[in-house]
Amino acid sequence: MNDKKFYMEKTFMNRAIELAREGMDNGDGGPFGCVIVKEGIIVAEGNNCVTKENDPTAHAEIVAIRRACDVLGSFQLTGCDIYTSCEPCPMCLGAIYWARPERVFFAANRNDAAKAGFDDDFIYKELKLPLEDRTIPHIRVQNDEGADIFRTWVSKENKIKY
Amino acid sequence: MNDKKFYMEKTFMNRAIELAREGMDNGDGGPFGCVIVKEGIIVAEGNNCVTKENDPTAHAEIVAIRRACDVLGSFQLTGCDIYTSCEPCPMCLGAIYWARPERVFFAANRNDAAKAGFDDDFIYKELKLPLEDRTIPHIRVQNDEGADIFRTWVSKENKIKY
Repeated sequence: MNDKKFYMEKTFMNRAIELAREGMDNGDGGPFGCVIVKEGIIVAEGNNCVTKENDPTAHAEIVAIRRACDVLGSFQLTGCDIYTSCEPCPMCLGAIYWARPERVFFAANRNDAAKAGFDDDFIYKELKLPLEDRTIPHIRVQNDEGADIFRTWVSKENKIKY
Repeated sequence: MNDKKFYMEKTFMNRAIELAREGMDNGDGGPFGCVIVKEGIIVAEGNNCVTKENDPTAHAEIVAIRRACDVLGSFQLTGCDIYTSCEPCPMCLGAIYWARPERVFFAANRNDAAKAGFDDDFIYKELKLPLEDRTIPHIRVQNDEGADIFRTWVSKENKIKY
């Protein structure tokens, strides 16, 4: 049983890596691929399409998450596993937390990505900095008006929480 | 001149907050809005559409970034400012770093969002944890095959870096 489980995990990761290679060869974007699996079946696949689509958010995981949610008709990936060829960058990790799958499997990590010229590790470091020390300045304005809308949300009836 | 600058910043933030309110009232998703400005002109707007579109990545900033990049025909937001009704969550902050705008203005912050039931602050805390301590398990497999593809990327000719 463990052998079978290992074999399936390897099959899914191999597919994620294959998607990464195909996307790179096609000139879609960087060498990143992702598959999302539910009950032993791939429900969606994705590869990095940043440069092809002029979309900086079109990382493999984001592409696959959007497709999987579309297929499943849900904004949650309950019961799903994510197989990604590289440790998710902060953007994709955030997306994963919002989508709430069961587990994330990855092959290469943020250091491997950094060595190949990708900013993953840099962004992880920036996230930990106080707002005033970040490379991209973050400036707070109109605190009260911004917070006020949350009070309306809290008291709103018939809202769908996510 | 400073008065004019302040007035413009306030106008853009008011619009972001208005988008947040409209989106909430329309039932698109949570109360979040965003505008992206280049040379004093709004090039794209967005509001949270998570529940309407069954897309956990459809946060206001992601929606606006994708639209702005489409309008500008670029995967970079060089020279742009982002006005968002709430401090970006880790996913959106990651997207902002990949899009590389000049500055980010925000009104409410992660604590305001958390008080209204949004996971922003929780995800910020998870990001800082070692992989093995995270609520969503992150499991590394096939390190070598994952890293190998980056070596191919580094030696690839005619690639578009992003």
